[in-house]
Amino acid sequence: MASSSESNTRPIRLADIAKAAGVSHGTASNVFSRPEIVREEVRERVKAAAEAMGYAGPDPKGRLLRAGKVNAIGVATTEPLSYFFDDPFARAMMAGISEACDATGAGIALVSAGNQEKLAWNIQSALVDGFILFCIEGGSRLVELTRERKLPFVALELGFDDDTVSAIGVDNVAGARLAAQHLAELGHRRFAVLALPFADGSTGLVSPEKVRTALYTGTRDRLVGYFEAFSRYGVDTAGIPVYETENDEASTRAGLETIFASAAQPTAILAMSDRIAMVAIEWLAARGIAVPGDVSVVGFDGVPDAALCDPPLTTVAQPIAEIGRRAARTILDFDGTVRRETLGVELVVRASSGPPPKAA
Amino acid sequence: MASSSESNTRPIRLADIAKAAGVSHGTASNVFSRPEIVREEVRERVKAAAEAMGYAGPDPKGRLLRAGKVNAIGVATTEPLSYFFDDPFARAMMAGISEACDATGAGIALVSAGNQEKLAWNIQSALVDGFILFCIEGGSRLVELTRERKLPFVALELGFDDDTVSAIGVDNVAGARLAAQHLAELGHRRFAVLALPFADGSTGLVSPEKVRTALYTGTRDRLVGYFEAFSRYGVDTAGIPVYETENDEASTRAGLETIFASAAQPTAILAMSDRIAMVAIEWLAARGIAVPGDVSVVGFDGVPDAALCDPPLTTVAQPIAEIGRRAARTILDFDGTVRRETLGVELVVRASSGPPPKAA
Repeated sequence: MASSSESNTRPIRLADIAKAAGVSHGTASNVFSRPEIVREEVRERVKAAAEAMGYAGPDPKGRLLRAGKVNAIGVATTEPLSYFFDDPFARAMMAGISEACDATGAGIALVSAGNQEKLAWNIQSALVDGFILFCIEGGSRLVELTRERKLPFVALELGFDDDTVSAIGVDNVAGARLAAQHLAELGHRRFAVLALPFADGSTGLVSPEKVRTALYTGTRDRLVGYFEAFSRYGVDTAGIPVYETENDEASTRAGLETIFASAAQPTAILAMSDRIAMVAIEWLAARGIAVPGDVSVVGFDGVPDAALCDPPLTTVAQPIAEIGRRAARTILDFDGTVRRETLGVELVVRASSGPPPKAA
Repeated sequence: MASSSESNTRPIRLADIAKAAGVSHGTASNVFSRPEIVREEVRERVKAAAEAMGYAGPDPKGRLLRAGKVNAIGVATTEPLSYFFDDPFARAMMAGISEACDATGAGIALVSAGNQEKLAWNIQSALVDGFILFCIEGGSRLVELTRERKLPFVALELGFDDDTVSAIGVDNVAGARLAAQHLAELGHRRFAVLALPFADGSTGLVSPEKVRTALYTGTRDRLVGYFEAFSRYGVDTAGIPVYETENDEASTRAGLETIFASAAQPTAILAMSDRIAMVAIEWLAARGIAVPGDVSVVGFDGVPDAALCDPPLTTVAQPIAEIGRRAARTILDFDGTVRRETLGVELVVRASSGPPPKAA
């Protein structure tokens, strides 16, 4: 125990403040960490004591809490937690987020909305300074719950009409246009689209109605971009199959079975993610269909693995790690402003795309 | 506001308990979430009120807190956070941990000890039910800090003398012996070892003294396993270069430069991780050295990517995802006992190993 003669030289601690204000240590702690649960009168008393005593101890915990910061970011997804480690796009994004966190020593709390029952609790209880939201649409429960925390949050998707939400993403229409234009310029006129989800819970060939009412506006925007390019090159869009996948292996394979069961087979496949494109390349190879000799495949995302597949994938590259870094810094350096950033994409031409076969 | 006539039908809430016990909402909350910061007398009073009133509201937050659970696991590493997303072994382990968490809707808090300054705070402040510790040695600061939290924790490494620590891992000696034995039986007699770190902060050729005083006992055990097999096959171990890497690309390449600069070049490389082995295969291919025609390479871990590299990697496969699942369940279903589990490994023979070249 410190004797009273030492009290002028040792730093003031929270316990000293609590004693001076006549409250428990727990209450004093709450004043700095969770002020909303402390009665106003008590809060004022504790704060006055802290100010009077020049409470500025060297304990980083105290310092951070006093600044209202816990030095951690919550990252939430509507997918199961395993998505962060299985999905190549999520992994590349998390690498960027981690890099920004590592630079300041911040931690990361992973929150899954895959389990709806626990979603509210997981969002409510995460001890974080703000949230980065993966894979979301504007009016989702995830956004609503996050709003309730009254902490900064940023969506990794720009397909929002709501300008009060900070968001970082790419121009999906422009990116998709680049991909379709590249194939059209190579001479392709018979296309198929392997799409990301338009909403939750269904896969299969997509109707115009489904596109119009899409919950996931990023998916819709990519389709709009493809179709803009098709129109420009006089491609008859009526016959183009658009198959909605769940961005996984099983639904992508089902889509390919459907597409290649038809009489008019495509010479080019536009895949809305590199993950889908890489499954497609594998599926085609297993059936002796040459890529790009018989069928060209173009992805979307620019994940690191896309450069390593066989043949290497032509794709629309998003600056994934940069999006992740910016999202993390938006939370770590939050200044109260809503930020909506659109980063540029580029077409990376590799070996999975070429002219259509002569006979086609 | 609920009128008093409704009080018999609506669930009892924490606010009711606080009122009955004459404490603030914050103090009542602390009794269930952070009892250690509440004075015993107050704690008893609040608990008595809760019991008397049959406090068992439907709010999952309250329910979980009452059980002393927050439904989240902290995963801590001595590496930067990006390790979880960059490293193939860490990713496979996290996939297993995530799977177990997804099954119960639990969250994950990632804690990095890469930033020493923030380590204590990050461990102290993580709102979790326990910790899984990656990449550690027995007496590390990470273990000490985690102990202070008085929460269950489990180490993903068995190389501990301390039987009070729960740990899950594999028999590193037996696994390494399998790898070296496989190469010896193929006829190899000239080996090189690309090792994991023995301690922090250095790379290069390793002395017997360094091995004896290894901080990372898992690394030492793998080397012991290799040397046991060498001895059994009459290999002269004195001339075998053992190069300590940092389990990354740069230090592995430096190790290969050193090893292949020597007059007596190896016909077989034992790599202590698949990550090191895959860098080695790439390095050898770039120099026109055929794998396995000129040099065989055997890894350790059994990460998914090892099956996909060219040539596919022969390796000692750990049940990585199963270790992750068990570690998570050790925390989620913690019953107060120390668990020390050793899971089996197996040699997976693929195309990266073969007989030594005839001239050798």
